[in-house]
Amino acid sequence: MQTIDTLINARWVIPVEPDGKTLDHHSIAVHGGKIVEVLPTANVAKKYRATETIDLPHHALIPGLINAHTHSAMSLFRGLADDLPLMDWLNHHIWPAEAKWVSEAFVRDGTELAIAEMLKSGTTCFNDMYFFPDVTARVCADAGMRACVGLIMLDFPSAWAQGADEYLHKGLKLHDELRNSELVSTAFAPHAPYTVSDAPLERIRMYADELDIPIHMHVHETAHEVDAGQKQFGMRPLARLAKLGLLGPRLLAVHMTQLLPDEITSLAQDNVSVIHCPESNLKLASGFCPVQTLVKAGVNVALGTDGAASNNNLDMLEEMRIAALLAKGVSGEATAIPAHTALRMATLNGAKALGIEAHTGSLVAGKAADMAAIDLSAISSQPVYDPLSQIIYTATRDQVTDVWVNGRHLLAKHQLTGLDEAALRDKAAQWRDKIKG
Amino acid sequence: MQTIDTLINARWVIPVEPDGKTLDHHSIAVHGGKIVEVLPTANVAKKYRATETIDLPHHALIPGLINAHTHSAMSLFRGLADDLPLMDWLNHHIWPAEAKWVSEAFVRDGTELAIAEMLKSGTTCFNDMYFFPDVTARVCADAGMRACVGLIMLDFPSAWAQGADEYLHKGLKLHDELRNSELVSTAFAPHAPYTVSDAPLERIRMYADELDIPIHMHVHETAHEVDAGQKQFGMRPLARLAKLGLLGPRLLAVHMTQLLPDEITSLAQDNVSVIHCPESNLKLASGFCPVQTLVKAGVNVALGTDGAASNNNLDMLEEMRIAALLAKGVSGEATAIPAHTALRMATLNGAKALGIEAHTGSLVAGKAADMAAIDLSAISSQPVYDPLSQIIYTATRDQVTDVWVNGRHLLAKHQLTGLDEAALRDKAAQWRDKIKG
Repeated sequence: MQTIDTLINARWVIPVEPDGKTLDHHSIAVHGGKIVEVLPTANVAKKYRATETIDLPHHALIPGLINAHTHSAMSLFRGLADDLPLMDWLNHHIWPAEAKWVSEAFVRDGTELAIAEMLKSGTTCFNDMYFFPDVTARVCADAGMRACVGLIMLDFPSAWAQGADEYLHKGLKLHDELRNSELVSTAFAPHAPYTVSDAPLERIRMYADELDIPIHMHVHETAHEVDAGQKQFGMRPLARLAKLGLLGPRLLAVHMTQLLPDEITSLAQDNVSVIHCPESNLKLASGFCPVQTLVKAGVNVALGTDGAASNNNLDMLEEMRIAALLAKGVSGEATAIPAHTALRMATLNGAKALGIEAHTGSLVAGKAADMAAIDLSAISSQPVYDPLSQIIYTATRDQVTDVWVNGRHLLAKHQLTGLDEAALRDKAAQWRDKIKG
Repeated sequence: MQTIDTLINARWVIPVEPDGKTLDHHSIAVHGGKIVEVLPTANVAKKYRATETIDLPHHALIPGLINAHTHSAMSLFRGLADDLPLMDWLNHHIWPAEAKWVSEAFVRDGTELAIAEMLKSGTTCFNDMYFFPDVTARVCADAGMRACVGLIMLDFPSAWAQGADEYLHKGLKLHDELRNSELVSTAFAPHAPYTVSDAPLERIRMYADELDIPIHMHVHETAHEVDAGQKQFGMRPLARLAKLGLLGPRLLAVHMTQLLPDEITSLAQDNVSVIHCPESNLKLASGFCPVQTLVKAGVNVALGTDGAASNNNLDMLEEMRIAALLAKGVSGEATAIPAHTALRMATLNGAKALGIEAHTGSLVAGKAADMAAIDLSAISSQPVYDPLSQIIYTATRDQVTDVWVNGRHLLAKHQLTGLDEAALRDKAAQWRDKIKG
């Protein structure tokens, strides 16, 4: 008999590895924050003695969802300016609001609100790009949330840094401070080809190689961006990134709604990860990412919500559903992105993109216990023919009952065990009153 | 002082008429199932004495949502066969399952399950097309649900009828039985141009004029349907319906993913209503309905979920969100289908399509008290800059707390007051066990 911290008995376990597998009446043994074993519940009694046992009789246990692109603090701008085109939205609403309001306090409160929302909808890890990434990292560590914080880079000054040198310096310092963190990793986060010039991109390429961390960047979000890049640099932004040596397995290219066939081939050859943000792309009318073609070409495609100001939620269950549905519509193939592929995109593929697939992204022994339980007894999920299909095509965030990050039970029976919801709600209202003026 | 049944004090009331209006701290006075007045809460005390007062301090009160196209009993096939193309899905999965399982008991249990799901997500009226519409009508009357039941017509025999004569006869009989029903109306429901031949369509046209009821039909769902119609009849299905005299204000043309510019003009001129089912169209890769173009042309566009076997839920909040997002993506205009238009499509436009806009579809004095309360205090809806935007772009069905149909409080604090959820869950599981075999 082995003594362990926690034993979770679930009606179904969907481990993501192997792909598409659903295990009936299985249990997960957790000790020291890690998955010890995934085994039939019938075999548990003779093998493990657990300090805590949790029964999930109507639930599917899945790997915690990985939101591979967001700007978490922007949750405080959620719904500030809707139904507007990208450039109008950025130039006349979001950028002015950021210039006026973004501060350490804003990032702290916005990120806490975002983490609360993410945990309540089954997300255990997010890849962030925003100002004051040091604050984001501290909030994550305090909340027990896994994240990759972006070391942001822009040609323009902000409340966080005055120019390329300071962005880079502060980023490298933060990377150094976080190098032993179990929960928070870092990536370079040059905002976009149209906001970062060649010299800082070359330095980022060099440091990323040296430090062995990802590069997280908006690329080809709109046709306008591609046209403008062509005019300014005489080549498409992706070609410019290739010229600068940025195309490779470290690159997380976010959005990618504008792609030529040979660009798709090159993404596959160079092992670039594409981060698909379907709701944001739809909401801003940015274009359609050719997800099914990318997947067929062998590109690693992960999913992100983008910030709450252009989505307007951080709900990866909904993002999976919309990704699965939209890929069918765009490709004209109703078999495109079936349920198990959507779940893989939102879990293991995200971990791969972030270079943390050895630690998270699937429910296998040795990985961190990053998990979400989804109650499939909701009326709107009846009857259950296939639990995986019900998760993708019927479940909503209120069916997420329990979430663990690194073995810590951060959401228990719908309740956040760390963050204070009422306080978050009050703080959000205070920010709204200030921002709305 | 006037004595009334119910007074509801809401943080916000969004009446849909006038379009886009949000009323702060307003109340709705209800008596005898009807809305007596919408007024500022501050003015209530001196005017009304209510038997029951309900406070909704964090909620928006909206007109009950109208699901303008569904096959409610198919909820028992939810998730039976996903990630398949329309014709494969129909020919090899849905139609064989229907041939084997559809019966009075199936329609009763499936419709009850669907009504429970619809009420819990804010829907107060649905437009149905399925076999045994007499059973559907009875279940609605028992549950207190508003519906328009389709008098289905097919060239093929089914458990409900053997051929055109019997479909028509049974349909007319049901129409007659329901002619005094306050909650349940009827529409002719010829399945689709490719499943109903000219003679029965001509008879339907004649009877529809005589009885003054709508005609509810799948039209131009896929390119395949249009091509096949062109080959068989030498014209596109819409042209054939025009030739048969079916294009007019009575027609609810469902799906409409294949439309030429002059067809859009003719839909507008003839006052045809288009029922847009974005999730179903995406899931079956049927094509994109040009919603923004239709709205600009002045066509009345309403929203439907389609059946739960191709969606896979009956959640009109989600359908509004996806309609608003997809219209932006398809038109390339981020201003397309703003939040208030999405809500209007899911309420008043549905009522107009069904010819019941004098009775429901907006919160104005004299109409039935068909209403849904949405709690905007959820973490994922914070902060609230604009309640209407938060409903469309952030809210999920779990935020629906209370629903009234014709003044009856059918959902109270998330609990169904009539239907028994546990019993519905058990019945759904029994059907699954039989159907899965």
